[in-house]
Amino acid sequence: MAEVALQPDERIDVLQGAGIRIIQSASVFAFSLDAVLLAAFAQVKRTSRVVDLAAGNGAVGLFVARRTQKPVTLIELQPRLADMAARSVRLNDLTNVDVHTADLKNAAAIVPKDSVDVVTCNPPYFKVTPASKTNPNDHLALARHELTTNFQTVCETTAGLLKYQGKAFFVHRPDRLAELLATMAEADLAPKRVRFIHPKADREANMVLLEGIRSGKPAGMRILPPLVVYGADGQYGEEVQHLMYG
Amino acid sequence: MAEVALQPDERIDVLQGAGIRIIQSASVFAFSLDAVLLAAFAQVKRTSRVVDLAAGNGAVGLFVARRTQKPVTLIELQPRLADMAARSVRLNDLTNVDVHTADLKNAAAIVPKDSVDVVTCNPPYFKVTPASKTNPNDHLALARHELTTNFQTVCETTAGLLKYQGKAFFVHRPDRLAELLATMAEADLAPKRVRFIHPKADREANMVLLEGIRSGKPAGMRILPPLVVYGADGQYGEEVQHLMYG
Repeated sequence: MAEVALQPDERIDVLQGAGIRIIQSASVFAFSLDAVLLAAFAQVKRTSRVVDLAAGNGAVGLFVARRTQKPVTLIELQPRLADMAARSVRLNDLTNVDVHTADLKNAAAIVPKDSVDVVTCNPPYFKVTPASKTNPNDHLALARHELTTNFQTVCETTAGLLKYQGKAFFVHRPDRLAELLATMAEADLAPKRVRFIHPKADREANMVLLEGIRSGKPAGMRILPPLVVYGADGQYGEEVQHLMYG
Repeated sequence: MAEVALQPDERIDVLQGAGIRIIQSASVFAFSLDAVLLAAFAQVKRTSRVVDLAAGNGAVGLFVARRTQKPVTLIELQPRLADMAARSVRLNDLTNVDVHTADLKNAAAIVPKDSVDVVTCNPPYFKVTPASKTNPNDHLALARHELTTNFQTVCETTAGLLKYQGKAFFVHRPDRLAELLATMAEADLAPKRVRFIHPKADREANMVLLEGIRSGKPAGMRILPPLVVYGADGQYGEEVQHLMYG
């Protein structure tokens, strides 16, 4: 296993379900359940060319990387996070993953248009409003708020990269559902499968997984069985436990 | 209890959960779980003025009627179904329910605009396409297919009847979700609460309950906990059992 230097605030976590070690930092960025669920939701085959946009510390891209023999390209705007992702790639001896520090809207300068089978993205969730208290120099603020990108740009970039009938997989917040579906459709990403994540069986959804197909037919959306994170006993349910611990 | 004559193909069913007896006919129209779930989802208060559009044999309107002291108006295009509904009103000694045989698009000729607190509608689910095999003289076909109305007309009519901040409650098919949300928003019915109905916990949703608020803010949609109809044992789950049997 490759030797990789850690910065003082960094640690290495293991996602056993994906067989991946990942450099994390609570003060800069640490992946959360969103990334694990998105990686599991994404349909990555052995022959899938994959791009992960707004890659953060690389969680989603790393978690799907062993499922394909084709390249997996991670694109992240923040140099510090892209550097963490690049070191995690070495830490796992992954030879099919490349990391680029770039604004996702310029992704076509890195990966040719119409060439990708799967695009994944765990984008910033929150709209920026005059009331938003965000520090534009804060790594976490950039990852969480639409300061440097927004969902429309994510969808347009994704549609540009994907082959005809290629698939996009996103995780987002359900309180924006109507807008998310409309924005996907406008970008020619037909929403096909939707899965809601509920913290418990009797609680409202706090995340939504979305699959869009480039130039897909607009009708026939499927609402998958709900994913319930915690059981009545407060422990991870079977499905999440399997993803986290294998 | 009022004496009510039944036609040869009719029977009387009881929805114990709502304390309602209802005239049904398998050959013409019989309510199904959709109506029970929509009536339970609708927030009807003691002071709510209610209109039920595309009322069929009156199931939704009858099921909510005892929860308000204000009038409940049922509007149904097919005379045979409206007649069944009117007889069910008498059967239950309901003095606050009136039934009208009319196209829902003309509802404002029956109920003043901007005067209603709650509109419910269990509309025809299926789009009419050249491939649709439907008989336009068939009672069931009219109830199931968008032969004489469509969801856009339902939403526009609903928005016209509702007071400012009045609430619409619909049940529909989730495969049309993106279109349903967009159509509601275009008609100034902001989608606020959405609940998916799954036949079993591990099955895709086959119905969706939608709440829209007239002139509501467009953001902040809530995805309620999933409603699972049948337990692993094949019996109704607790929530549905309560609605059906009290």
